Amino acid sequence: MTLTEQLLSGNRLALTRLLTQVENDTTEGRAALTELFPHTGKAHLIGVTGAPGTGKSSLVNQLALHFRKQAERRIAVVAVDPSSPFTGGAVLGDRVRMRDLAGDPGVFIRSMASRGSLGGLAQTTAGLVQVFDAAGFDIILIETVGAGQAEVEIAHLAHTTLVVEAPGLGDDIQAIKAGILEIADILVVNKADRPGVENTLKALRSALELAHPVRHVFQHHGVLKVVEAPHEPEYNSWIPPIRKTVATEGTGISELADEIDRHARHLHESGDWATRERSRLGSELEALLQNMLVARFRKQVSESIYEEVLDRVYQRELAPWEAVKVLLNGRSK
Amino acid sequence: MTLTEQLLSGNRLALTRLLTQVENDTTEGRAALTELFPHTGKAHLIGVTGAPGTGKSSLVNQLALHFRKQAERRIAVVAVDPSSPFTGGAVLGDRVRMRDLAGDPGVFIRSMASRGSLGGLAQTTAGLVQVFDAAGFDIILIETVGAGQAEVEIAHLAHTTLVVEAPGLGDDIQAIKAGILEIADILVVNKADRPGVENTLKALRSALELAHPVRHVFQHHGVLKVVEAPHEPEYNSWIPPIRKTVATEGTGISELADEIDRHARHLHESGDWATRERSRLGSELEALLQNMLVARFRKQVSESIYEEVLDRVYQRELAPWEAVKVLLNGRSK
Repeated sequence: MTLTEQLLSGNRLALTRLLTQVENDTTEGRAALTELFPHTGKAHLIGVTGAPGTGKSSLVNQLALHFRKQAERRIAVVAVDPSSPFTGGAVLGDRVRMRDLAGDPGVFIRSMASRGSLGGLAQTTAGLVQVFDAAGFDIILIETVGAGQAEVEIAHLAHTTLVVEAPGLGDDIQAIKAGILEIADILVVNKADRPGVENTLKALRSALELAHPVRHVFQHHGVLKVVEAPHEPEYNSWIPPIRKTVATEGTGISELADEIDRHARHLHESGDWATRERSRLGSELEALLQNMLVARFRKQVSESIYEEVLDRVYQRELAPWEAVKVLLNGRSK
Repeated sequence: MTLTEQLLSGNRLALTRLLTQVENDTTEGRAALTELFPHTGKAHLIGVTGAPGTGKSSLVNQLALHFRKQAERRIAVVAVDPSSPFTGGAVLGDRVRMRDLAGDPGVFIRSMASRGSLGGLAQTTAGLVQVFDAAGFDIILIETVGAGQAEVEIAHLAHTTLVVEAPGLGDDIQAIKAGILEIADILVVNKADRPGVENTLKALRSALELAHPVRHVFQHHGVLKVVEAPHEPEYNSWIPPIRKTVATEGTGISELADEIDRHARHLHESGDWATRERSRLGSELEALLQNMLVARFRKQVSESIYEEVLDRVYQRELAPWEAVKVLLNGRSK
């Protein structure tokens, strides 16, 4: 049996080995992804992102435990740490997790420190997710540390995106929100037992109004109702709910998990699941293309010519844009 | 006079207009960068990065004010907010800054919300920095919100990188440090009047030891001395200092500014300035090449073929890797 066949028949060692091959972007890893691809597309991919200090890891742990217990689903976690391009910053996090989740074959956690470019990071994450998907995991949680562009791009790999906030993380947070809010399907205020939680909720609510402008407000039996205008297809009817949690105590986890399942149902019923799936795969194709184009170019231009051109840039004889033209036109072995 | 000539003669309106053209990546913007490039290479580029909530913006403000007053240098600030891919999250920050720095022609602040890909973000930042450099600004502070891969790549544009931390930002911070520390030339513990500052300092010191392993410890006149092994050229003799500040009160700013100047002198004396300049320009060339390759490819493959291939991926008939091969081999108008 090949490694991919072993994986498809539920072999955990095969899973570990394939994950490593995909992470290292080996030839075997690429071949395996191609073989496994027809078996993907079943898992619910959930992105969890937010600034440091919001307690995302605990939240992801609790969600994994909950989904596992409540519905016996198999859960994979891909923890991406793009802040650590050099060392394996994700190792500590894993050890902490292991305490709760170790020994359960229905839960698998994979941490990944970033290597190389961001394109590479999103690509590797997509690959790991495909391996888990093919291996039959029902829910795949993709956790990213931080709230930068990298996280936004990785969040685009998911069907459902959770943005986690916490009270009292300082004023910069306010600036962060605007952009990251627009990718949120569900907002989580974790550490909700902390002082300042009302301010955080208030800030989120007003930011949410900016990001998802209300289309119609009307009175129905004396009650104010809000609906999206049905003739504006760019607005679907999902308004991101805000959920309070205290992950370290398990508070609010069950309600959050229900909200996640509700979002999955919404995606299927509205047809948005297919739309997201297509756009997800489009981003993936994009990233692969970019890497391949650069790799091909590297093969065509000799190192010495590249160095020579860079040297002329360094001497200010050639502007970077001119250098690009020289390299693209004067390719030689 | 052309716009670039006006810029070189100190025209502030020309500066504003060129910055906009470069940010929008217009043809004029590219042409201007090529014309301006021979006039660049004089400014000291200082990257300031760190997690949200560390008070980076205040710190950058204070540094700008200090350099301005103390030595009458002209200061530019490029504030990059990669967390805001959709809306202009940087606007609020600007308004706050304007209070202190408005009206001083020797200080220019440019905020930039991210657009498109990360490669594009680093490329645009590099372009803005070149415009400021050519316009004769002595110091260019490049501020990034967050501590992800995006920030690391943008920090690579600088000669000197400051990594800002603050006490009590939660446990995730510990994980963040490992990678980001290795790019730090100077570590700043801002908000140093807060409780927990000793813990933050302690954590930074031990992380620093991991990132910059001490080579030799010996006794000299009864005092323990630490030196780098001179025969190991990959270790230069700069050990990142840690500086405490309270930016909102101006505490520690003067000492931090001295440290920054000391690092610039160190770079010049050790020859590392040239090394960094070359690697900076190398990253820039890389990013431009990548964008150009993708743009050229886009022109060669028709939208309908691309959509057709993506559709086959969506139908799981074609794995993403196979799709890339199809697109690369079957190019047609």
